[in-house]
Formats: sequence, structure tokens, C-alpha cells
Amino acid sequence: MPTGAAGHDAASPVVPGRAARVSGTVRIVGSGLLGASIGHALRQQGVDVALADTSPSQLRLAVDYGAGRAASDADEPSIVVVCVPPDVVADVVSAELARFPRAVVTDVASVKLEPLRALRARGVDLTHYIGSHPLAGRERGGAISARADIFAARPWVICRDGETPAADLALVEDLALDLGAVPIEMTPEEHDRSVALVSHVPQAVASLLAARFADAPELSLSLAGQGVRDTTRIAHSAPELWVQILGANAGPVVEVLDALAADLADVADALRRPDAPGARRVVAEAVRRGNVGVERLPGKHGQRRRFESLVVMVDDTSGQLGRLFGDLGELGVNVEDFRLEHSPGAPVGLAEIAVDPSVLGGAVEGLESRGWRIASTSD
Amino acid sequence: MPTGAAGHDAASPVVPGRAARVSGTVRIVGSGLLGASIGHALRQQGVDVALADTSPSQLRLAVDYGAGRAASDADEPSIVVVCVPPDVVADVVSAELARFPRAVVTDVASVKLEPLRALRARGVDLTHYIGSHPLAGRERGGAISARADIFAARPWVICRDGETPAADLALVEDLALDLGAVPIEMTPEEHDRSVALVSHVPQAVASLLAARFADAPELSLSLAGQGVRDTTRIAHSAPELWVQILGANAGPVVEVLDALAADLADVADALRRPDAPGARRVVAEAVRRGNVGVERLPGKHGQRRRFESLVVMVDDTSGQLGRLFGDLGELGVNVEDFRLEHSPGAPVGLAEIAVDPSVLGGAVEGLESRGWRIASTSD
Repeated sequence: MPTGAAGHDAASPVVPGRAARVSGTVRIVGSGLLGASIGHALRQQGVDVALADTSPSQLRLAVDYGAGRAASDADEPSIVVVCVPPDVVADVVSAELARFPRAVVTDVASVKLEPLRALRARGVDLTHYIGSHPLAGRERGGAISARADIFAARPWVICRDGETPAADLALVEDLALDLGAVPIEMTPEEHDRSVALVSHVPQAVASLLAARFADAPELSLSLAGQGVRDTTRIAHSAPELWVQILGANAGPVVEVLDALAADLADVADALRRPDAPGARRVVAEAVRRGNVGVERLPGKHGQRRRFESLVVMVDDTSGQLGRLFGDLGELGVNVEDFRLEHSPGAPVGLAEIAVDPSVLGGAVEGLESRGWRIASTSD
Repeated sequence: MPTGAAGHDAASPVVPGRAARVSGTVRIVGSGLLGASIGHALRQQGVDVALADTSPSQLRLAVDYGAGRAASDADEPSIVVVCVPPDVVADVVSAELARFPRAVVTDVASVKLEPLRALRARGVDLTHYIGSHPLAGRERGGAISARADIFAARPWVICRDGETPAADLALVEDLALDLGAVPIEMTPEEHDRSVALVSHVPQAVASLLAARFADAPELSLSLAGQGVRDTTRIAHSAPELWVQILGANAGPVVEVLDALAADLADVADALRRPDAPGARRVVAEAVRRGNVGVERLPGKHGQRRRFESLVVMVDDTSGQLGRLFGDLGELGVNVEDFRLEHSPGAPVGLAEIAVDPSVLGGAVEGLESRGWRIASTSD
């Protein structure tokens, strides 16, 4: 549930000390979560933000929360950012291109090919249109949930084509950089296939796996550990949103789902007939290729360094965690990753800490000498 | 990779101040990870632990590391714990029952029905056999990886039947409690179906999903976020181990895999034919039932409380995390869950903190007044 408690403090910059790269007026059409968040971030860097929305109350809310001013007929925006639901992106982009022929028009929809096809189908001149997609995820929407920092360090896909003027491309890249995002260029096809693979299908799979627990016996679920909790965490997502996203990217999603269903069937068949030739190999290969695949996912900071982990037992209080991190700081141990493992039925937590292999031994010794109980080391 | 750096410090008790419930000699057959870990934990509570292993070098290693003494012919154990690979459990249990007719014999294999069937098939008197399964997960094996604390707060399934003497059951429960685990009674059938659902199938699904990344373009994978990383984290598991586990629990695993494959096919069909009657409902229901299922998984301490979350931006240093937890402690905010989100391409981390809804507003205000940048609130 969003709360306004945090406020949208104009004194807290997106990236402290950085001046905006974009200049002139930025027009934002659609003042929901993404539109209002972009507005906040730009306002905090002194950019003139003109907000438009088909809903007057949504617009007032975004203005009241400091995301920008209401757009006026006199505006001459340098860039228009279309932040509306996927099914109206083509309509709105087309209208904005017609109205502001000297502006660059971009959008932030999470699929890129369908809107482009719709625009091409109506014969719109797309010279000044550049599709983009900031991979900034909040599951709850609305201007009230907006935050200037949601784009920080996230990829921002930019889909230009051969006709795109260099100055237009630079403007959209500057926008992404002003928001603290990392611009990545792709074709719309590459983008849609990529998000099907790394976002849409994982979402569908997590939902379907979690759906198997809907009617499962309570006793069975009591054996659930951190593994299955991780595997199904994103199943908390909102149905309405995902019906729209999966539907808009159906082609690439179906392709991956079909391949996955075939793999599942192969493994099930191999388990059903364990003595058939190659059956054990099918199962082993599935797990081994899973090893290879998961290793290829970019980790922290896009790196693929391997870390060692140690698991420390902590009482269930933030004071304990404070002391733990304080001790780690004093020991000069940099925490590369951290996970608090749940402990069913016991008032104790397991804090899993990933560290560089070179400091593992020292970290374990140092923590033990300070009275910490190390449950295990390495993963 | 296991490291010996932490040592197996006999001064660090499993549960400080608790005396062992089990008495007499505990014989452990198989001194790998689980056997040696049980040994360490019992030794630290003053219990006489007699270790046996078909491998003399593995046995020497476990003894050297302090997991117990080598078993002798004069031993009269009160309980025998069989910690050998699933495919030899029935052989070893049967031999131990014959050799120590007055002892309770238990095992720790991760499937329970197959060994029981094998024992019944050879006509063994199973009065003093009680299958058990501690859900203690380390992916690396061997006595060198053993730790006294790996059972702490984890479920320990105990499969007795109608013939089981109450005193025998009590002894196995005491063993679980001595190791800090939470005893849970189930039938072997319930156990195998349960672990298929909450452990074996999630493992297979995570592996198969991650396997799709094995040959995917690098550019596609650069869009991967925390969601897919969570969904595929357990795909790091060792192939050899999982071939054996999935094979030994094939029946229940295949049942869930088949159901899941059918659900996947339904969603793929609905996406292929979005205008077919009910197609959008199939997709929405999959996500909605996923919501229901994931909510039913026991969370921290087996509770299902809902928490609010706030996301704080932190520099990539453990000192920052120490200060953050220190501030949370001073603000009186209890951290219910914590996750450090990776930030591809930027030296900044997002610390997601789950708190009780009643303290969210205060936590956000307090942190902001201390100079923290809150990226977002609520999930």
C-alpha cells in the first residue's frame, strides 16, 4: 500500500550534485507512477515539467505532489514522454507527434513492438519517435506512489531505428541519465524477446508454480524453505497489470513458454521411465544447463564475480543486525550481498552474507571472536 | 567451496545453555555433511557419538574435525542415525536393525517412501525404525562442510507408523530438539508429496527456467532484474544430487510437473488465441491463484503477517548498512525482512526493509531526518 508519509522532498536530489542534461520543457503525458516519478526527478534538477493527463483529478494529484505543473497550450516541449497504459500508447504518441512536430516523442511502455506496429499501420511519420522502456519496477501505481529514485541504476532500453536523428537519440539518452538510469540500445524485437525471457515468462512461471499452493495442505506448506519462497516471490504481482503485459507481448512469451513446457515434459517423461535409455541424462542435463544459465545472469553491478557466503545466526531484532554490520565494517569486510533467511518456528534469523573469497576466513574468525555464531560458510 | 577457517569450535554450543535430551551413545552411520553435522551438535552437548563410515578416510576426517569418535564393536547405542545416500538407506537401516535390536534406528534421507518400501519388501521387522528428514540444506557435502548449527530452526519430519513405540518416537524427537530443529510428524506419503511440491518441483522449475538462459544473447540477459534472479537462485544446485533426489521421488514429482505443464500450456494457448472465449480470464486466474498460493507459504517464524516495505538507497559498503541498521535500532524499528537489491551498472544498492505497517511512517520520517534517501515505500 502506498503511503505519502515519506513525502516528495524536493530537497533530496536524485543524484546529488548533478545538473540536468535535458533542457527546455519536458512534457509528460500520463501522470501515474512512471510519469509522476519522472516529473519528480526532473523537477528536483530544475527542469520545467509540464504534466498532462486525461484524468483531471489524477493530474491535480500529481501537481500537488510536486511532479510538475499542469501543461498549457503555449508549451513548446523539447521532449514528450508518453506514460500511458500499453493499449493507448499508439494513439497518444501519434497525437503528440502531430501536435509537437519539433519535439522528440518517447514512451515508457513495457512492450515495444506492438505500439510501433500500430503507429506504422496508421502511416505516422516516426522520424522523431523513439520508443523506450525503463525497467523500473513498482507493483503499485498512481502518482501517490511516485518517487524520484525508482529509475536509479536500472536499465533504460532505447529503441531507435536507422532514421532516428542523432540529436533525438542523445536527448532520450540524456533523459535516462538525468533519471539515474543506464541507457541500453536495442531493436523493438530484441527488447520484446528479452523481456519475455527475463521478466514475463519468469513472472508466469512463478505465478503458476505458486498457484499449485493455493489448495495444498497446510502441513505440506509447513516444509517450505527459502528456496521456494525465492522462486515464487514475484507471484505477489497484480493480475490486471500482468494480463495486459503478457497479452501485449504474447508472441515472444508463448515461444518461451512452449519451449519450457516441452522441457518440463521431457523431464517428467524421464522420471516416469527412469530405465529408458538416456533418462537419467535428461534430468542431469536439465539441472546442469540450469547451472550454466543462472551463472550467466548479471549479478551486482552487472558483474559475474563469485562470492563466498557465510551464515550468521542473529536474534530477530534490527539492533542485532546493526551490531553485525557494525562489526563487519570494523573488520573491513565489504558485504557484497545480504539475505535474511526466515526460520519457521524459531525466534532466530539466519543472516547470509556474501563476501569476496579472499576475506571469508578473516570475516568468520573476526565475527566468531566477537561472539557471533556462524551457522555455516560458503554456498 | 567449504573452508575450514571457521573451525568446528567446540566452545560454540548449538543452543547455549541447553543440556542434551538424548542419552547413552548415539551411533551415526555415514559421516558426510549431515552425519558429521549431527555429530558436532551432539558432541557439543556432551553426548557420546560413535561414527561409522564405509570410507576409512572420510571417517578419519570426521573424527579429526571433532564430529565424534570411531565406533567400536562394544558400542550399545540407544539410537542409530543412518546418514547415507538414498540408494543405500534400506540396506544400511536393515543391517543396523539386525545388529542393534534394542536401539531405535532412524535415517535422514530426503525421500521417505522408497526406502520404507524396500525395507518392507525384504521382510525386515520395522518396529524400531522411524524414518526422518531434517530439512537442512547445504549444497556442498562432506564432513569438512559440517556445522553444528545447520538444523537450527529447520523442520525435522518424523515418519512413525501405528506400531511405533512411544519411547522410540520420543527419542527421535529428542534428537531433533537437541539439534535445534522443529519436529513435524507426517506419513511417508505426506512427506514425499509435500517435498515434491515445495522443494523438488520448484528446484526442477528453477533449473529449467534458468536453462533457457544458457544460450540466450548477453544483451537480453542485461535486462534481468531481482525478480528473475530470485526465481532462478536455486538453479545453482548440484546435478548429481538432484538426479538422485528427483529419481527417488519420481511419482509425486511427476504428478506436480504434469499439472504444472498443463497449466503452462493453458496460459500459452490463451495468449495464442486472446480473442477465444475466456482467454483473458485464464491468464488473470493464473496470476490471481499465484497470489493466493504465495500468500499461503509460511513466512518468517511460520507466520503469515503482512509487512510494508521501504527501500533505502545505500552506498555499496557494509559500513553504510551498519549505520542503517544502527539508525533503525535507535528508531525502535524492528526489521522483519531485509533484502539487498543489486544495481546493475551503478555503485549503489537498494536495501529493501520489511516492517510492521504501524511503524512504516515513523521509520521513513526518522530515516529521512537522518539523511537517508528513501527510494520507495510499500511493495
